[in-house]
Amino acid sequence: MHTVEPIRWTPEGVVMLDQRRLPREVVYHTYTDYREVAKAIQDMVIRGAPAIGVAAAMGIAIGVERSSAETLDALRAEFGTICDTLARTRPTAVDLFWAIERFGRRFAELALAAEKNSAGARGVARLKALLVEEAKKVHQERQDADREIGRFGAELMPKSGRVMTQCNAGALATAGIGTALGVIRVAVETGHSIEVLVPETRPYLQGARLTAWELHQDHIPLTLITDNMVGHFLKTGGVGAVVVGADRIARNGDTANKIGTYGMAVLAREHNIPFYVAAPISTLDLSIGSGEEIPIEERSEEEVTHLAGMPISPEVRAAHPAFDVTPARFITAIVTERGVARPPFETSLRELSAHS
Amino acid sequence: MHTVEPIRWTPEGVVMLDQRRLPREVVYHTYTDYREVAKAIQDMVIRGAPAIGVAAAMGIAIGVERSSAETLDALRAEFGTICDTLARTRPTAVDLFWAIERFGRRFAELALAAEKNSAGARGVARLKALLVEEAKKVHQERQDADREIGRFGAELMPKSGRVMTQCNAGALATAGIGTALGVIRVAVETGHSIEVLVPETRPYLQGARLTAWELHQDHIPLTLITDNMVGHFLKTGGVGAVVVGADRIARNGDTANKIGTYGMAVLAREHNIPFYVAAPISTLDLSIGSGEEIPIEERSEEEVTHLAGMPISPEVRAAHPAFDVTPARFITAIVTERGVARPPFETSLRELSAHS
Repeated sequence: MHTVEPIRWTPEGVVMLDQRRLPREVVYHTYTDYREVAKAIQDMVIRGAPAIGVAAAMGIAIGVERSSAETLDALRAEFGTICDTLARTRPTAVDLFWAIERFGRRFAELALAAEKNSAGARGVARLKALLVEEAKKVHQERQDADREIGRFGAELMPKSGRVMTQCNAGALATAGIGTALGVIRVAVETGHSIEVLVPETRPYLQGARLTAWELHQDHIPLTLITDNMVGHFLKTGGVGAVVVGADRIARNGDTANKIGTYGMAVLAREHNIPFYVAAPISTLDLSIGSGEEIPIEERSEEEVTHLAGMPISPEVRAAHPAFDVTPARFITAIVTERGVARPPFETSLRELSAHS
Repeated sequence: MHTVEPIRWTPEGVVMLDQRRLPREVVYHTYTDYREVAKAIQDMVIRGAPAIGVAAAMGIAIGVERSSAETLDALRAEFGTICDTLARTRPTAVDLFWAIERFGRRFAELALAAEKNSAGARGVARLKALLVEEAKKVHQERQDADREIGRFGAELMPKSGRVMTQCNAGALATAGIGTALGVIRVAVETGHSIEVLVPETRPYLQGARLTAWELHQDHIPLTLITDNMVGHFLKTGGVGAVVVGADRIARNGDTANKIGTYGMAVLAREHNIPFYVAAPISTLDLSIGSGEEIPIEERSEEEVTHLAGMPISPEVRAAHPAFDVTPARFITAIVTERGVARPPFETSLRELSAHS
C-alpha cells in the first residue's frame, strides 16, 4: 500500500508536505534553516505528535549541519539555541520534547567522545554528520514503530464493519503508516473488511482534509461526518471499534489528543464500543502522574471564527483549546509498538516502557 | 430587549429573513406564492421547528388568499394541493404537520359554516380572510408561548455562570423570542448573570451564524466553540445547565433535535449537568410512542463535503442526518408554555397537553 510522506531528509534540506493546503494542493517546501522548521511546526505545515517529533529531530539536524560553528563550544551553544527554539513551538505534543531530549543526550555523548579524541574541527564535522544520522534514525524508528503498532492493533479491529477515528493519526501525522490509521491499514491488508467513519475535526478539518484524503488514496472505504454526528453514529451506525492517536499519555493512561476525543470516548463507553489509543512509546510521559498535568495548547480564536480566511460568525469571543484529555477509565487499551497495554495502565505502561 | 423577526405577514405577502445569508447580509424576501414558501422552507431560508410551523401557516394563508377560486369546492381542492405541497418540505419538524392539521380543521369548520349560510362567492372571500387571520393568530400564539416557556425555564437557569445550547433555538427559529434562547433571554432580563457557550453546529453553522448573531445583538455574553469542544467544556468549563430546542417530542419524552444534541445530552449526564428541552406543546407528537418512530431527515452529502460552496474534502462519501434522537432518560425536564414536565414524561406530557 502506498503511503504519503509528510517529511523527508534530502541533501537539499528538510522537505515537508504543506498539510494546510491539502487536499486541494500537494505542495512541498524545502527548509534549510532550523528557525523555518520551527515556524513550520508552529504554523501546522506539519502536525501530529509523532511527525512533530520527526520534524524536531530533522530541525535540530539541519540546524547543526548548517551551523558555521567550528569548535565544540561554539556548536554546543548553537545546539542549545536550536533546541530552545524548537521547544517553543507546540506545548502539548510530548514527542517534540522527547526528540529534543534524545538529541541532548546524543549530543552530550558525541561531544564527550570528540573531546576525548581531541579531534578538533574534524571532530565537530563528524559530530554534525552523526546528528544527521540520528535524525534519519528517528524517522526510520517511527516507520518501524507504526508497523508494529499496526500489527498489534489490527488484531483488535472487527473482522468487518465500521471503525471510527478522530482527526488525522495517519501517515501525515507520524511519517510512517500512521498510528490509528496504521492499525486500520494493517487490518485492511490482513483481510478485515472495514469502513472508516471520519469526523471532519474542526476547526482545522484534519479529518475532512487529511484522513479522508489518505484513506481515499489507499482505496479504504470511508464516510465523512461532521463532528456533532459522532454520538448519533456510535448509537446507530454499527461501529465496532474506535481507534485514535495521542499527543501525550500520562503514567496512569490519561491521554491528551485532538479536541473531541474525550466526548467520543464517553459516547463509545455509553454504547459499549471498545475505545483504543494507538501511539508510540515516545508519546508516554512518565514524568506526569495524570492528565491534569498535561498543558493544553490554546490556539487563536480566529481559527474558530473563520474558515479558509472567511468569517463564519459575527465578531464574537471564541475558545480554541486544541486538545482535550480523556481519562484512562474510558480507554479499553493503548496500542504501542511493544505491545498492547490494558488497565491498570500504571502497571502495563510501566512494563512496556521498561523493556526495549 | 429587541429581537429579530424571521417572518412577518404583510399586505405585500409573506416576508422572510434569509437565514442562509446571516450574519453577513440581512436580506428579506417577499413571497406571494405558496410554492415559493414551500421552497423557502425546504432550502432553509427559514428553519427551526416552531418557525417552520409559522411559515407553513402563512404559506397556506397566502396560497388561499391569492387563489383565484370563487367556489367553495374549487377552494377546497386548491387548499388540498397547498397543504400537500407544504407537507413535502421537511420531514422531522412536527410543527409543520401540526400547522397543516390545524388549518385542515379550521378550513372544514369555516367551510361548513359557509355552506350553511349559502354565502356563495362572498362566503369564499370571507373564508380566505379568516384563514389569513388564523395564520396571524398562529404567529401571535408562538410569541406568547415563547414568553411563557422563557418564564418557566428561566427559573431553572443558574443565577450565574455558563449555559450551553445547541444550534439555534432562538427568535430566528421560532418567530418569537426563541425557546432555548427565550429561556436564556428571560433569565438575563430577570437578573441572571449568564454566559452562553455556543457550539457552531456544522454543517449549517446555525450556532456560529445565527445564535451568536442573536446573542451578540442582545448583548448577552457568549463564547463560540466548535462542536467537538462540547465534551471538554461540559467537563471543565463550569457549565450550570444545558438548554436546547426540539423538532419533535414523542409521547415518552424522546426528543428529536439538531444533530449533536444526543451527544451533548450524554455528556451532560456524565457531568451531572441538568439537560433541559424547551419547546411549545405543538412540538409534542402524541401519535408516536418513542423516538424510534421519528423520521430523521437525510440532507445532501454536499452540505458536509462543502462549506460556502467550497470543497473541504476530497470527493468522498459523506453522511448527513440533520437530526438525532435523545432518549428521555437523558432529559432532566421539558419546558413548555404550560409548565415544566418532569420524568416520567409519559404522564407529565400527557397532563400538560390535556389542559389548555
